[in-house]
Amino acid sequence: MARMKVTVAYDGTDFAGYQIQPIGRTVQGSVQAVLKKIHKGEFVPTSASGRTDAGVHAIGQVIHFDTDMDIPASGWQRGLNAMLPKDIQVRDVEEVDETFHSRFSSVSKEYHYKLLTGNQPDIFRRNHAFYFPYRLNRDDIKIGCEQFLGTHDFTSFSSVKTHVTDKVRTIYELSLIEDGDDLTFKIKGSGFLYNMVRIIVGTLLDVGQGRKRPEDIKTIIERKDRAFASKTAPAHGLYLHQVNYE
Amino acid sequence: MARMKVTVAYDGTDFAGYQIQPIGRTVQGSVQAVLKKIHKGEFVPTSASGRTDAGVHAIGQVIHFDTDMDIPASGWQRGLNAMLPKDIQVRDVEEVDETFHSRFSSVSKEYHYKLLTGNQPDIFRRNHAFYFPYRLNRDDIKIGCEQFLGTHDFTSFSSVKTHVTDKVRTIYELSLIEDGDDLTFKIKGSGFLYNMVRIIVGTLLDVGQGRKRPEDIKTIIERKDRAFASKTAPAHGLYLHQVNYE
Repeated sequence: MARMKVTVAYDGTDFAGYQIQPIGRTVQGSVQAVLKKIHKGEFVPTSASGRTDAGVHAIGQVIHFDTDMDIPASGWQRGLNAMLPKDIQVRDVEEVDETFHSRFSSVSKEYHYKLLTGNQPDIFRRNHAFYFPYRLNRDDIKIGCEQFLGTHDFTSFSSVKTHVTDKVRTIYELSLIEDGDDLTFKIKGSGFLYNMVRIIVGTLLDVGQGRKRPEDIKTIIERKDRAFASKTAPAHGLYLHQVNYE
Repeated sequence: MARMKVTVAYDGTDFAGYQIQPIGRTVQGSVQAVLKKIHKGEFVPTSASGRTDAGVHAIGQVIHFDTDMDIPASGWQRGLNAMLPKDIQVRDVEEVDETFHSRFSSVSKEYHYKLLTGNQPDIFRRNHAFYFPYRLNRDDIKIGCEQFLGTHDFTSFSSVKTHVTDKVRTIYELSLIEDGDDLTFKIKGSGFLYNMVRIIVGTLLDVGQGRKRPEDIKTIIERKDRAFASKTAPAHGLYLHQVNYE
């Protein structure tokens, strides 16, 4: 028995999300269907570092599965890529210790959120970046970013649908990367609550438009109430960029 | 009666090509369906600078149509963009003289062909650039590019399906733009035969791989026989970038 750690990228556009569900095309469902074929009809469960919603992309989602098949890591990568649909890509496969768990062994995660500004949207990236035509004060956004750093209870920045009770998370890095009309929020943390990155981005966009002041963020965190933060930014700008392990 | 010149971008992925046809989704069909709605059910024909094949994209395709509606250019742009599908974008509308013709008034055209090299394909651009993992000698490609410049009979570089009899065209510019793993062929000419850009690119890729020498290109042109040039590069790397008028 070998445990394989698989790093996958996917274009979330045509998926109903990462996690398998009775109806709708999912990343997990597609991967498990291929694993079942390779294992001659035997069901092979997979675990991931976490779910992503419909429309959310991944560059470095990490999953793992156990197998009896005697296939080296490079063979898994080649075989899976040959059989998976075009919007899922295996970027790396590694055999790991049986104590490794894609979710429980992770120590931090990095998400990117891509915004496209400028006069006209880029139709070739309509599903891969959030087009935001309104004027943004980038300096205010950067001051806003700093307010999120550190360990806080992020109740205000998580969907009310969250079932988790411990909402304390640590944000190690939150920066705005500028490349002309392309803006990318890079956010690295110990873990993220449901919709947390998208609500943080939505709130920073309000800060950039002057609808909220950068220093309001501290207050919003303290309120521990979702109603005080801004709208959730749309799914199609979000990328699970990297999952880190010890 | 006013003649409107419309510059459109489209993502060719989900189109059976530019030109309207009995079966399949087309750009022209989509535009004319919207124009018909705006004109209360009246059919409004459109002309374009030329066709593009299934999968080929446009940044600056130019079309024109005549209308009795009293709508300013900016109103046409807004209205069309509101009604067109998400993979077509009107980038500019201008009222022009009745002597203007999108095809016959054009003096030159520019196409771009996007290649993506590197170890792994970028799944987010799988429909928007041709992934080419093989080693390329970029210097040889650049010498090859120069051989195409000027006025030649491009029979060797056009599909045998071409119906045009005069196959003499002038290429003003053909360059390879390098941006890390991203390579773009920029080609500007008086006009292009059917599949001409894609056959030129296919041949330059053979040159880059050492399967042909840069100086072979002169000979291939002289042969006036499609069989001597290389394979047609795939459609999804090609962009009609700009159409120029006097």
